[in-house]
Amino acid sequence: MFIKQLSRPEKETRLRQRAGVIWLFGLSGAGKTTLGDALEHHLVEAGLTTMRLDGDQLRLGLNQGLGFSDTDRAEALRRAAETAKLSVAAGFVTICSFITPQRAHRELVRKIIGPADLIDVYIEASYAVCAGRDGKGLYKQAARGELPQFTGKDSIFEPPLSRTGCFIINTEREAVDVSAARLRDLVLPILRQLT
Amino acid sequence: MFIKQLSRPEKETRLRQRAGVIWLFGLSGAGKTTLGDALEHHLVEAGLTTMRLDGDQLRLGLNQGLGFSDTDRAEALRRAAETAKLSVAAGFVTICSFITPQRAHRELVRKIIGPADLIDVYIEASYAVCAGRDGKGLYKQAARGELPQFTGKDSIFEPPLSRTGCFIINTEREAVDVSAARLRDLVLPILRQLT
Repeated sequence: MFIKQLSRPEKETRLRQRAGVIWLFGLSGAGKTTLGDALEHHLVEAGLTTMRLDGDQLRLGLNQGLGFSDTDRAEALRRAAETAKLSVAAGFVTICSFITPQRAHRELVRKIIGPADLIDVYIEASYAVCAGRDGKGLYKQAARGELPQFTGKDSIFEPPLSRTGCFIINTEREAVDVSAARLRDLVLPILRQLT
Repeated sequence: MFIKQLSRPEKETRLRQRAGVIWLFGLSGAGKTTLGDALEHHLVEAGLTTMRLDGDQLRLGLNQGLGFSDTDRAEALRRAAETAKLSVAAGFVTICSFITPQRAHRELVRKIIGPADLIDVYIEASYAVCAGRDGKGLYKQAARGELPQFTGKDSIFEPPLSRTGCFIINTEREAVDVSAARLRDLVLPILRQLT
């Protein structure tokens, strides 16, 4: 009896979807987690099978012990991207929300997952607006100097070089339910290829 | 608009299954990967949605750079278990095949995943029988002294203390298709709880 591992196409066919990664990046407080969660609700409602990976959540488990140095951030993102890749191999639509501050980090993610399986989405909001929201109180802590290596302050955040290379959701100008529906409409035609 | 992440019960209900991890452990060549793949075929045929994590596969990605020292093996297994936990949170039946040589490793896995979500399966075959199969040529390499820290030779493998604490599949005495069907019948009633 010869047995080989179920292939990704076999799994995709069974799930009636094309697997892929939607990678939301942007400043802390820009709305990545909220939008990722809202997008997942929409995609599940549309009948897709999803997996959700979030930066804060992974730091409690898979990325436990890693800090916020350049090296540690890169390793945290490498592990996240490798996990997303495993999820794609299983046929799942994978929604990732990670700050992914540097262009080099986004390149690393793209290299691991492969450009054909990756949809990059920049969640755009200025430092000032994110600091004004400050849902987790991190901006206040950073202002008091209690968070060295805070993204956008002591640690660099590089926005995309071009406004055409990835999807952009601006959460200053658009309400989250509008953004989430727009994001759904952007990605569904791609992920529905097989249905 | 308040949005919260889709919960595991919501995902399980939608997938009509109870999520959980089936963790196959045993010597290299005992048949973990083959049985894991065969079990996945069976479970998918039964309508379940699965994710597959395998030791060799993870060493090419998520566990790249880790070696075979006690510390590195523990870290590799920690990452595998954390990934399995994420997969369970997404509602998936997760089939893992890793040597997991020491009892302490199995304890670590159990602690991370949680006993309620873990089915341990010992894939039993003696060192001599595994060396006789030697599908990957590792036992020959180890015999020539080219693989320091090889499991069962220079690096310890601890079988379960009791023959009642986990499922046992003996691949010396039983053909793989018989074992796979038996394993399916053992786990399906547990994973079907919600269907």
